[in-house]
Order: sequence, then C-alpha cells, then structure tokens
Amino acid sequence: MSFESKLKAAASRFGYLCLGLDTELEKLPVPFSKSPDSILKFNLEMIAISSGYVAAYKPNLGFYEALGSPGWEILKKTCAAVPKDKIIILDGKRGDIGNTARMYARAMFEELGGDALTVNPYLGSDSLAPFTENPEKGIYLLCLTSNAGASDFQLFPPADPLYLRVARRAAEWNKNKNIGLVVGATHPAQLASVREAAPALPFLIPGVGAQGGSLAEAVRYGTDGGKIPSLINLSRSVLYASSGPDYKEKAEAELKRVKAEIDSFLSVRV
Amino acid sequence: MSFESKLKAAASRFGYLCLGLDTELEKLPVPFSKSPDSILKFNLEMIAISSGYVAAYKPNLGFYEALGSPGWEILKKTCAAVPKDKIIILDGKRGDIGNTARMYARAMFEELGGDALTVNPYLGSDSLAPFTENPEKGIYLLCLTSNAGASDFQLFPPADPLYLRVARRAAEWNKNKNIGLVVGATHPAQLASVREAAPALPFLIPGVGAQGGSLAEAVRYGTDGGKIPSLINLSRSVLYASSGPDYKEKAEAELKRVKAEIDSFLSVRV
Repeated sequence: MSFESKLKAAASRFGYLCLGLDTELEKLPVPFSKSPDSILKFNLEMIAISSGYVAAYKPNLGFYEALGSPGWEILKKTCAAVPKDKIIILDGKRGDIGNTARMYARAMFEELGGDALTVNPYLGSDSLAPFTENPEKGIYLLCLTSNAGASDFQLFPPADPLYLRVARRAAEWNKNKNIGLVVGATHPAQLASVREAAPALPFLIPGVGAQGGSLAEAVRYGTDGGKIPSLINLSRSVLYASSGPDYKEKAEAELKRVKAEIDSFLSVRV
Repeated sequence: MSFESKLKAAASRFGYLCLGLDTELEKLPVPFSKSPDSILKFNLEMIAISSGYVAAYKPNLGFYEALGSPGWEILKKTCAAVPKDKIIILDGKRGDIGNTARMYARAMFEELGGDALTVNPYLGSDSLAPFTENPEKGIYLLCLTSNAGASDFQLFPPADPLYLRVARRAAEWNKNKNIGLVVGATHPAQLASVREAAPALPFLIPGVGAQGGSLAEAVRYGTDGGKIPSLINLSRSVLYASSGPDYKEKAEAELKRVKAEIDSFLSVRV
C-alpha cells in the first residue's frame, strides 16, 4: 500500500493525533524500576491505551540512542508492537549525502520497520531521494520547527524565508505523494503561510502539548477542514500525565480530551 | 583537556588528515567474509595502518545504523580502538530541539566516547547548546556540503546565502572554542568566503577524494597556511583503494601520497 493511502486510511479511521514516544527513564511513573527494560514496558502500555485515539506513533530516536545498543533493540521492539494500520514515524531528523542517505533508509525502513522518517532539508534534493523513491515509505521534511532557535535560520531572509522555500520545493518534489512537512504549532501565523506555499502536503505538527502551541490553528491549517491527513503530535503531556499509579488513566484522559477538542474544531468548520 | 587543545595537539603532531570510516560490507576487499564482524576487523586494520598519517577518525553513523543494534556495538568498539591522542568525530549530522539534543549528546559523547559530532544547523542555537556547553567536546556545524543538493537551500538567497549566515553565527556562538564548520572541497570559490566569514574556525573538509574536490584550496583556506587545525577527510579513496589482498598497502600509500601533497602546499606558502 502506498504511504499516501496508508496515512489517509489511518487518519480517516483514528483521527489526527500522533503519540510521540520520547520515553525517558528518569521521567517514568513511580511504579517503574529504573532499568532500561522499563522503557519498552511503558511504551507497550502507552501503545495499548492510545490505540483508539491516535493514527500514528513517533518515537524520537535520540531517546533510544542515549541508551546505546540496548536502546536500539527497545526501539525495534516498540515499532514491532505498533498495530499495522497505524503510521510509524521515526523522528531522527536525518539528512546526509546520497550514499549515506541510502544507509539511513535501510536503517529506518528495513531494520526498524518505519513507515516514515523526519528529514532535515539542509542538504537538498539528492539527500532526500533515497527516502522518497519508494512510494510505500514517506518523509516529513523539517520546515518550521517549534523551538526558539527556529528564528536563527528558518525565518531568514524575512522577505522570502527559508521555511517557505522548503515548503515550495517540497511541494515540487512530491511526485510520489510521500512528502510531508514538520510545522510547529508554536507559530500559528506562519502555519497559514506554509499551507499556502504547499496546499496539499500533510503536516506533522509538534508543539501543541508541553510547548503550548495553538491546537485550533493546527487543526485549521493542518487539516484544511478535515481534507488533509495531517498529524498533531502529543508527547510529554500524555506520557507523563501523571507520575503516580494512575498514569495510564491520566494519559488516556489527555488523549481523549485533545481528540474531542480537535473534533469540535472540525465540526465547527464543516 | 579542552577540545580546542586536543585538536591543535593532534593536527600539530599528525597533520591535517581525517579518515572517514564509512565502512560498507558490500565494498570490503575480497579477503573479508560477508559477515558484519568483518566491518569491525576492517576498521581496526584501517586504524592501525593510518595512525601515523591522520589526526582524526570520522565514522559515519548511517553505515552502522543500517546494521541495527550489532552496528551500534561495532561502532562503539571501533571508537574504543582509536588512539587517545586522535580526535573522534561522529558524523551523525544530528539536530533537534533542546531536550532531544541533550539525549544525542549523551549518546555521542558518553555512550560512544566521541570528541565531536557533526550537527545540522537548521534548528538554530538552542539545538546546539547541549553539544557545546562542555568545552571538552566539540561540534562541526554543516555549512556548505559537498553534494549537488547544496544548491537547493545553502546558496540562497544569492546576495547573502544561508551558508555564510551559518558561518557568521557559528563564529559568534564559539564562546567555548569548540565549534567548527563542515565545508566541502567541491566548492573552492566558496571556501574563501567561509574563511572570511569565520576567520578562526577550524573546518572539516569532505569531498577531496572520491568526490573530486580541490586539495590545494582545502589546504589554503582550511588551514590558513598551517595556522588553523582544520581536517581534510578521506574515506572511500583510502578504504577501498584496492579490492584485492593488497588493500592495506594501497590504503597506506594513498594516505602517504595525500599527506605529502598537503605538506608540499604548506611548504610553498611558508
């Protein structure tokens, strides 16, 4: 199945939420022991309680690499536990010249079984080709990130900023319909301009939870009133909803609350 | 010891070459079996034959990730085999928001024991801070890469291109004297402009071997006549100098040849 079809089917069935699995040993709820195995156990629990609310899972690779090779095994087992009708986005923000990008494609799509990968656009088109040549796999290209440092390079020059150039080129390169854009919800005004520059591209939108971005604008410009299968990512606000024994109930309640809020924005627009 | 001191000592003792360990099972010389263990064996041999000629080693992480968790172990053992007076640059081109960058710093500097990491500048200053706050560790920020796709974003807008903005900001951010720039030798004219924008920063220069960049310009603008401890990377032209049983002799001969050529450029300028 093409990435485009799989993404559309997942969003149509489960809605627009993505759960970021940025799992940190130090932040696990008190019932967990401080052993790396706890990360896998916690991830499997989070996948189980969230599966009715999310279309996608997004493990952030840094959190697994920090554990060395056992982390890589935990990541592989986490991916294997994701139901087949969900999208797995490996958030590695990779980007390298062609012969190396080919290696990363093998690591992400074959070794770990991801459906998509986040990719940094700095190296340009030939660094993306190895990830997009197979229509069954996709990429989300960093466009406008949710952090303060986004203003150092992404917003320059003000007259025609880098992030809009990235959005326009991504739309041109999207022959296999498997390119999306990472646009932070912390920049509501710019979300509209990215949607204008790339009218049909799905977004991956971080920054709604712990980082305080606007959910209303994420839904509005991300999904274009429910027509585009964009994904809105929640991570820390769900994973660490409670540090006590009620962490599963609190995590599920947060997912349910945000999903209902997204639905309310969509019903207003229809 | 600070990164700056270690880099200066290594370049002063061993010269300006860096050996890129982009080791690929499919390309190993015929004496090697097609088992992942061969990669470690080959790396250890390359480290042994090159140690008189190079100041640094640069494993490219994609090549190890493609092998899954065994690849991560091979990478760790390769790093452990590098003599302590050499610089280990982990070429991962990472870049993420602060809390994730902290995880990558742990992975690269603590788990793998690297001295430095290549970092993608797209996410700006707060994405770099977790890597540069310790003066004993360093980063090489992507500035102008050696591939064709460099022209998609790095050279825009022509009046004040992104790569020069990156070079200027890197020079400003270099409080701990542990930031360098990746500048491809395939762009000789631009090497001069990067040196002007960042007069004191060490470069990491790929693109001299298989990619055909100019060694003379790399030495001239990289080292500023031997005053700056820049590193010129060789990889495929050394690792795969011969596919036969004479691969070690041929690899060493290539290192010796390029080192002599660098020395000749330096002696002309003095």
